[in-house]
Amino acid sequence: MPRFVVTPWEVKGKVDYEKLVKQFGTKLIDAALLKKLERYAGGLHMFLRRGIFFSHRDFDWILNMYEKGEKFYLYTGRGPSGYTHIGHLIPWIFTKHLQDVFDAELYFQMTDDEKFLFKRELSLKDATGFTYDNALDVIACGFDPRKTFIFSDVEYAKTLYRTAIQVAKHITFSTVKAVFGFTNENNIGTIFFPAIQAAPCFFPSVLKGKNIPCLIPAAIDQDPYWRPSRDVAPKLGFYKPAQLHCKFIPGLGEGGKMSASQPETCIFTTDKPEVAKRKIMNAFTGGRATIKEQREKGGNPEVCSVYQYYYFMFEEDDEKLEEIYRECKNGDRICGDCKKILAERVGRFLVDHQRKREKAKSVIQDFMLKD
Amino acid sequence: MPRFVVTPWEVKGKVDYEKLVKQFGTKLIDAALLKKLERYAGGLHMFLRRGIFFSHRDFDWILNMYEKGEKFYLYTGRGPSGYTHIGHLIPWIFTKHLQDVFDAELYFQMTDDEKFLFKRELSLKDATGFTYDNALDVIACGFDPRKTFIFSDVEYAKTLYRTAIQVAKHITFSTVKAVFGFTNENNIGTIFFPAIQAAPCFFPSVLKGKNIPCLIPAAIDQDPYWRPSRDVAPKLGFYKPAQLHCKFIPGLGEGGKMSASQPETCIFTTDKPEVAKRKIMNAFTGGRATIKEQREKGGNPEVCSVYQYYYFMFEEDDEKLEEIYRECKNGDRICGDCKKILAERVGRFLVDHQRKREKAKSVIQDFMLKD
Repeated sequence: MPRFVVTPWEVKGKVDYEKLVKQFGTKLIDAALLKKLERYAGGLHMFLRRGIFFSHRDFDWILNMYEKGEKFYLYTGRGPSGYTHIGHLIPWIFTKHLQDVFDAELYFQMTDDEKFLFKRELSLKDATGFTYDNALDVIACGFDPRKTFIFSDVEYAKTLYRTAIQVAKHITFSTVKAVFGFTNENNIGTIFFPAIQAAPCFFPSVLKGKNIPCLIPAAIDQDPYWRPSRDVAPKLGFYKPAQLHCKFIPGLGEGGKMSASQPETCIFTTDKPEVAKRKIMNAFTGGRATIKEQREKGGNPEVCSVYQYYYFMFEEDDEKLEEIYRECKNGDRICGDCKKILAERVGRFLVDHQRKREKAKSVIQDFMLKD
Repeated sequence: MPRFVVTPWEVKGKVDYEKLVKQFGTKLIDAALLKKLERYAGGLHMFLRRGIFFSHRDFDWILNMYEKGEKFYLYTGRGPSGYTHIGHLIPWIFTKHLQDVFDAELYFQMTDDEKFLFKRELSLKDATGFTYDNALDVIACGFDPRKTFIFSDVEYAKTLYRTAIQVAKHITFSTVKAVFGFTNENNIGTIFFPAIQAAPCFFPSVLKGKNIPCLIPAAIDQDPYWRPSRDVAPKLGFYKPAQLHCKFIPGLGEGGKMSASQPETCIFTTDKPEVAKRKIMNAFTGGRATIKEQREKGGNPEVCSVYQYYYFMFEEDDEKLEEIYRECKNGDRICGDCKKILAERVGRFLVDHQRKREKAKSVIQDFMLKD
């Protein structure tokens, strides 16, 4: 039995990321690559310093091309089957950072067709509705409206289908069975979908009439989707899409990634601060049974979901983060206080994000690509 | 070994149409149905009198609905992988007749995606190019521009994809394996395609916001395509599409349907009259080895490709057709003369069709549906 499972539809168990890199055949982001990146960015983003973005395919090649004057575009996306939570924001925040550093265009895919096709109970109306709702969260991350193109697969199908059938002609059912574990009982929409997901690796090159390198920042579970794209790319005369992979932000429970299907351990971007606070106050921590015991023996930040939130998003200063870690270990930091401080920070973040989200409603049409 | 094979991609051997009706589970057009139809049309079209349109699904239901005041629309199409030949015109001529009689709208699908996906050597550019070329032949048949909507699957993908994924959600790979004989080596575009072919059974109802009966006149080999559509229809709240099936016009060789892959036994709509004449003069007939023998023993119109052309298209008068048959049987009609008369008629038809085809170039945009 595998101790953990990572597929585009399921993440189970405690993920061993180093093992995953070997299993998927990707590369760890090494010191040389970080040094190179630091030069462009004038420093290293917190997500790189902390190994939250940790793995890649051909990112070194993308940087070499960039050095030679060939700009790349960014491609990432979201499966809109529900409301956005904080875990979804991690790759988007980093994508915004990459857009700023490299002055790159971003194509952002809303796979409402995928969610409709894979989720028995989800209606097409609800899936396309979530496309618009979730796009507000994307825009709230601060992307440049002149360089950011958000599209719904359903609404932008004309452009996508034309490229997708060219990809599809080179992918057999045997291949998608092997890569995605599809069976004969899969519906024929899900079987075709990998070609739709591949299309944004190529259609911007088609639209601009020249071959443009593509970089995909996304959580590591999405990696399989771009394996067929990478195989097909040279057959169609395009560059293979490069990738940057991040880890999953854990939920507020014991282990596992943050998931909308467990709303009590998941902070939605639309949660009121007091709702988020309640969830945080109920979070699983590395604390002891009693305050007395914790003062004596110290807590365990390694297994603590609250500490993970400081680590992923809510303490940008590395020294202060280390201080939190030390205080916890020493027994100087008590869970109740630690949770309250986090809840305040999360609350402030939510108020700010929700304000930007409201503002996004009036500009969303500037971001949406239409056929 | 089956003596004949009929699938959407292959027609082989001498087709036993009565057997096919049993095999496919369709119904023969019977006397009662013809009588009903005669009332509306003020007579019976040659194709019905001669059993060229011979089979149906739910055509009786369509007529009952029509009697109750519920109009239907027509849906047919063409796989644009090459130039149009006379055999392709048979269902279109009949569809035009149905449009006139029932004042029906026609949705005409050009499956350029299908041809691109199924034909290894065909480029997307060539497939979409044939869409426009073949549309000229459709328009030349005289369809009403206000009621006729021609669309390329590639160009009209936005509307089609939205309906296709709703169909696709209800069709598994097991189903398309059973219906179309797909294997694991099929590319994933071909696997999805039946959902695209099903979409025009429903999208006009979606566009108009009410459930409208759909009638598909087409050659019998296309029947399998609409079996999944008929199964899925009630799940999506639509009527099952009804069908009218025709036989294949034979080629000018010995047996087999007319096929563009055998250009010497196939009359293209763009053939010059003298080219068509040469092909006809070389046609396989039911004649004897010598004129003397033919005068004595008579010819065999049953196996004669030239006679088939009178039968299918080039002698509308039933009595005159019978006369040709009798003269041939009696030895009064010699192949050379018979071919010359046919060649003249085909030549006149081609000149007229090509004139209409030229005129179609200036109005084609009035017929093409765009997203």
